[in-house]
Amino acid sequence: MDNAIAKKALRMFSYGLYIVTSAAERDVGAFTANWVGQVAFEPRMVAVSVENDAHALDVIRKGGVFAVNILEQDQRELAGQFGRATAKVGNKLEGYTYSAGSTGSPILSETVGSVECRVVLENPVGDHVLFVGEVVDAHLNREGEPLTMRNAGFRYSG
Amino acid sequence: MDNAIAKKALRMFSYGLYIVTSAAERDVGAFTANWVGQVAFEPRMVAVSVENDAHALDVIRKGGVFAVNILEQDQRELAGQFGRATAKVGNKLEGYTYSAGSTGSPILSETVGSVECRVVLENPVGDHVLFVGEVVDAHLNREGEPLTMRNAGFRYSG
Repeated sequence: MDNAIAKKALRMFSYGLYIVTSAAERDVGAFTANWVGQVAFEPRMVAVSVENDAHALDVIRKGGVFAVNILEQDQRELAGQFGRATAKVGNKLEGYTYSAGSTGSPILSETVGSVECRVVLENPVGDHVLFVGEVVDAHLNREGEPLTMRNAGFRYSG
Repeated sequence: MDNAIAKKALRMFSYGLYIVTSAAERDVGAFTANWVGQVAFEPRMVAVSVENDAHALDVIRKGGVFAVNILEQDQRELAGQFGRATAKVGNKLEGYTYSAGSTGSPILSETVGSVECRVVLENPVGDHVLFVGEVVDAHLNREGEPLTMRNAGFRYSG
């Protein structure tokens, strides 16, 4: 395999841009994610891939829940804020308005809407962990155009 | 959970548009897919969710391989062609130019590029099966803007 070609081809895949949050005991986690997608209709299920060294990984494991908060087209800045490592900047949720959803996961008021999930599957996949969650609640704050990786000019694939 | 809100929120997720192909023994499978995404960098892995009643599901299971062929912005028509059920229209690959990749999976000459994978995980997820494959080969036919679900005006989420 030509690694340069593999990278280039994988960078032609299209993604949205989200803030994935979770809560367990007194801990919360939040990170910017693009490896997010629905994987089943009945029941509704959503998959999220999380870096092995992400703070949120432990939180999702402990809590068994996560929320996918959908970013709007003008929220590139917010995506950048939540893309920093918790180990470096501490609790990224501080300073933002959110409420605890029915799963306890932080539901960010600024985002367009959110989907809450209970983890049903966890698969180690190399340098990431792939979670599949069943959708158990959802929220819509307003209408809006979703932000994509392409719009944002971010890159996390290849 | 309010099902209408869950549907609406899930329909704000963003996806690309691909033709997933596979081969096993003398059988081939091909279908239009949007629930496709990278899930790991090291090693490179790609996840694809396949309907329980898709012909390609058996082919992927038997062959243990699949290819993700990336559609270009003007290939909405091609996406429509491969979105029909094999049970109704027979072998959808007939009439199209393709070669067997190193995994044996059909590599469609018309698409922008392709990524070939060997299945490493298979998870039943409700009405779909979620496969994770390790990327073992890749091809680029040309430069091009990838087609998205939004561009195509298709809907497969909610």
